[in-house]
Amino acid sequence: MSNPSPIDELFAFLRFASVSTEPRHQEDVKACAGWLVEKFRSMGLSAARHETAGHPVVLARNAHQPGRRTVLIYGHYDVQPVDPLELWSHPPFEPRIVNGKIFARGATDNKGQILAHILGVEQALQRDGDLPVNVIFLVEGEEEIGSPNLRGFLEAHRDELQCDVVAISDTGMLAPGVPTFTYGLRGIVALEVKVKGPALDLHSGIFGGAIANPATMLARLVATLHDAQGRVAVEGFYDDVAPLQDWERELWRQLPVSDAELLTLTGAPGLFGETGYSSTEQMWARPTAEVNGLGGGFQGVGSKTVIPKEAFVKLTFRLVPNQDSQKIAALVQAHLEQHCPPGVTLEITAGHAGMPYVMDPHSPYGQAAQRALKATFVREVALIREGGSIPIVQTFKDVLGVETMLLGLALPDCRAHAPDENFPVENFEAGMRLNAALLKELANR
Amino acid sequence: MSNPSPIDELFAFLRFASVSTEPRHQEDVKACAGWLVEKFRSMGLSAARHETAGHPVVLARNAHQPGRRTVLIYGHYDVQPVDPLELWSHPPFEPRIVNGKIFARGATDNKGQILAHILGVEQALQRDGDLPVNVIFLVEGEEEIGSPNLRGFLEAHRDELQCDVVAISDTGMLAPGVPTFTYGLRGIVALEVKVKGPALDLHSGIFGGAIANPATMLARLVATLHDAQGRVAVEGFYDDVAPLQDWERELWRQLPVSDAELLTLTGAPGLFGETGYSSTEQMWARPTAEVNGLGGGFQGVGSKTVIPKEAFVKLTFRLVPNQDSQKIAALVQAHLEQHCPPGVTLEITAGHAGMPYVMDPHSPYGQAAQRALKATFVREVALIREGGSIPIVQTFKDVLGVETMLLGLALPDCRAHAPDENFPVENFEAGMRLNAALLKELANR
Repeated sequence: MSNPSPIDELFAFLRFASVSTEPRHQEDVKACAGWLVEKFRSMGLSAARHETAGHPVVLARNAHQPGRRTVLIYGHYDVQPVDPLELWSHPPFEPRIVNGKIFARGATDNKGQILAHILGVEQALQRDGDLPVNVIFLVEGEEEIGSPNLRGFLEAHRDELQCDVVAISDTGMLAPGVPTFTYGLRGIVALEVKVKGPALDLHSGIFGGAIANPATMLARLVATLHDAQGRVAVEGFYDDVAPLQDWERELWRQLPVSDAELLTLTGAPGLFGETGYSSTEQMWARPTAEVNGLGGGFQGVGSKTVIPKEAFVKLTFRLVPNQDSQKIAALVQAHLEQHCPPGVTLEITAGHAGMPYVMDPHSPYGQAAQRALKATFVREVALIREGGSIPIVQTFKDVLGVETMLLGLALPDCRAHAPDENFPVENFEAGMRLNAALLKELANR
Repeated sequence: MSNPSPIDELFAFLRFASVSTEPRHQEDVKACAGWLVEKFRSMGLSAARHETAGHPVVLARNAHQPGRRTVLIYGHYDVQPVDPLELWSHPPFEPRIVNGKIFARGATDNKGQILAHILGVEQALQRDGDLPVNVIFLVEGEEEIGSPNLRGFLEAHRDELQCDVVAISDTGMLAPGVPTFTYGLRGIVALEVKVKGPALDLHSGIFGGAIANPATMLARLVATLHDAQGRVAVEGFYDDVAPLQDWERELWRQLPVSDAELLTLTGAPGLFGETGYSSTEQMWARPTAEVNGLGGGFQGVGSKTVIPKEAFVKLTFRLVPNQDSQKIAALVQAHLEQHCPPGVTLEITAGHAGMPYVMDPHSPYGQAAQRALKATFVREVALIREGGSIPIVQTFKDVLGVETMLLGLALPDCRAHAPDENFPVENFEAGMRLNAALLKELANR
C-alpha cells in the first residue's frame, strides 16, 4: 500500500505548532484539528470538528452496534509552549528520531499517545473490517489550558457521548517496559498574583528605604506559602485531604523506584518535600504549592538600580482527594490577601482549576485495563497514582457517569512540558498494540 | 554667530545611546566620548579621550596659571538602560522638549547637568576670554556600572589631576527652584544570586512535592533579608552605621518635604521603611537591601506548569557612613550561604561596590558652594544628604585627597533610571549660571 507509515503520520501530526495558550498559534491549533478530522475520515470513521468558545473538539466514531460495549477514547492535540526555545537540541516542531526516540513538542504529551490509539483502530479495521466494541474518539485542543470548554461540550453532547467507560493514555510508565495503571490523579488550581507598588520604576538609591519594593514584597508573600517542614501554610488547606491507605503505601514501597533514580532523572542537587512522606507519596498523593514563574524589575545583563513598579508570580496548587478546587482557590486567595505585605497592593487573577480523581483499581474495568497492559508488555502491572492533573477525568465522571482507565505510555525522562520532549518509537508501537488488546478485553468482559 | 544653541548641543549629546552596561552599545559609548573631546577642543580647551580597560575617560583643561585655585569638575556621559522601552512616551534617544522639559535618557543623569557646566565655561571664555580659576573636566563613561576603572585612572594620572576641590552636579534639588547642597551620599554593594535546582525545567504536576522549586526557594531566600520592622536582617549589617546627628535630624524635619508629597511623587500605595526613622532619614542616612530584578520560570501569557530549573535575583545594598562596602559584601554573602534553602544550590556573583561619603557642609568649600547656589537661585539653600551613590566621591578623597561639592540640579520627578527621564530647560540654564557663580566664588575664597 502507498499509505504513509505510522511514523510519517505522527510526524505530520507533530508539525502543527498547536500551542493552545498562545494566541499567535490559534490558526495552528485549528489546522491541527482539521488534520485529525481528515485522518479519522480516511479510516472510515464518521468525524467532525466542533467549534467551542475556545479551540475546537474533534469527535469520531465507528458504526455503533447495539449490545456492544462503548468506550470513549480521550486525548488532546494541543501542546505546551516551547520556551525556553534555545534549550531545544532541534526545532520543537520539526520532529526527528534520535537513538530510537521521537523528539518534538507533543511527542509524548499527548500526540504520540492519542495517535497510537487512532492508528491501532485503523489497523484493526484494515485487518478485521470491524472493531469488537463501539468506539468514540474525543480529541480536544484545550487540555494544556485546563479544558475550559469541555464540560459544557460534554453536557451539550451528552446523548451521543453515552459510553460505558473512558480510556486515556496521557499518564506515565514507571520505567521502560513496565506497564503502569494509574488509578488516581491530582487536581489543580492556578492563579497569578501581581504585586503593585509605585506608579513607575524608581531609582533605588534615591527612594530606597522609604518605599516598599514590590519584588521584595513578592518574595515575602511567596515565602508565606510553606512552613519549614515543606507543608503548605494556607489555613484549612489540608482539611479535606484523604489520608493514604495502608495497602497503597505498602504497594508503593515495593515499586522499582528510588530516591537515587529520582535525583538522577531530574538532576536536582537534593530532594525536598513534606516531612513524613516518601517521594512517591509526596508526588502522587499529597497536595503542593508551586511557583511556575516569577518576574519583576531589571531582567538584562549587568545591573540597573531600580525599585520595580510591580512584580508577578504564577502559582499552581496540586490537589488530592477529597480537596475541592473551588474551595482551595478561595482559601488561597484569602491567604494572599491576609498576608499582603505593607506598602503594596495585590492583583489576583484566577486561572484554570480541576478536581483530583481516584478510582478503584480492583473494579472490573480496572482489571480489564490491567489485563490489556499485561498482554501488551508481558510483565506485571504497576499500580500507581500520578502527580499531574487531567481534570477532564472528574468531568467525565460528573457528566457521563463513567470511570476512566488511565493507561499511560510516557516515560519518566520524556521531558513533557520541557525542552527536548521525546517519545520512544517502541512506546508508540506498544500503544497501537495496547489499543487492540484493550478493545478485545472490553468486548470480552 | 552660527554656533548651535545650548539646547542643540544638549540634543546632540543626548542622541548617543551611551548605555555602559550593555555590550551592544559599546560603539555608541565610544562615539559619545569622541563628541565630547571635539566639543572641548572647539571651546579652546586642551582635551583627550583616554582609553581604559572599559569605556574611555575624557579629560579637558584650560591653560592653568600658578597661584589660582584648581577645581576638577566631574560628570559622566554614560547612561542607564532604557527598558522597559514600551513605557517611554517618546524614543529615549530622540530628545524633545514638552512643557519646558527635555525628555531623553540621560537628560538629567548626567548629560544635562555636566553639559551645563561645560557650556557655562564656554560662555565665560567667550565673554571674558579667560576663567578665574584653573579648571579640569573629567567626564567618564562608567558611572552607571560603578566606575570600575576610574580609581586606577586617577592613580595613574594623579599628577595632572592635582586640584583643590571637586565639583559635581549629579544629585537632586529638593523641589523646583530650591537650591540644594548635598553633603552626604550612600554607598552601594551589588550582587546577583542564581538559585539552581534540577538540570531542566520539570513538570510541576509529575514532580511537584518531592523536588525543591528554585523559584520558591529564591523567594524564601529573599524573604530572609529583612525583618518585620523593615530592618536588614543580615548579621552585623548595622555594626558600623554612624548614628544620625541631632542637628541634621532637626534640619531635615524643617525641610519643605512631606510624606504626602513622596506618595504623590512616586504613586506608591503607601510608605514602608525601617521603624523609628522618618522617610528622609530612611532614604538619606539609613542602609537598605533592595531587589532590583528577579526572574525564573515561565514568563509568557497564560500558564505553563513547570518547576523552573533556576531563578535569579539582582540585589543592591545601599550603605551609609561608616559601613565598609567590602565588609558588607562579605557579610551578605555569608548570610546568603547560611540561609541557602534546602534542595537547591546558590551561585553568587559579586557586582560593583562603592563607599558611602559625608563631608562637613560648614567647611570653607561647603560654604563657597552654598553661596554660589544661593546666588544662582536667589533663595536659601537646603542642606541634605542623598540616598543615591556616587562612589567616585570617596575615590577622589582617597586618591587626590580632596573634598567634593555636590551641587545637584535634578528634580524629584526627573525619572532618572526610569522611562520618560527629563530635565527642565530652566534647570539646564541655571546650571550654566551656577558654573559661572561657582568659579567666581572659588576664585574669591
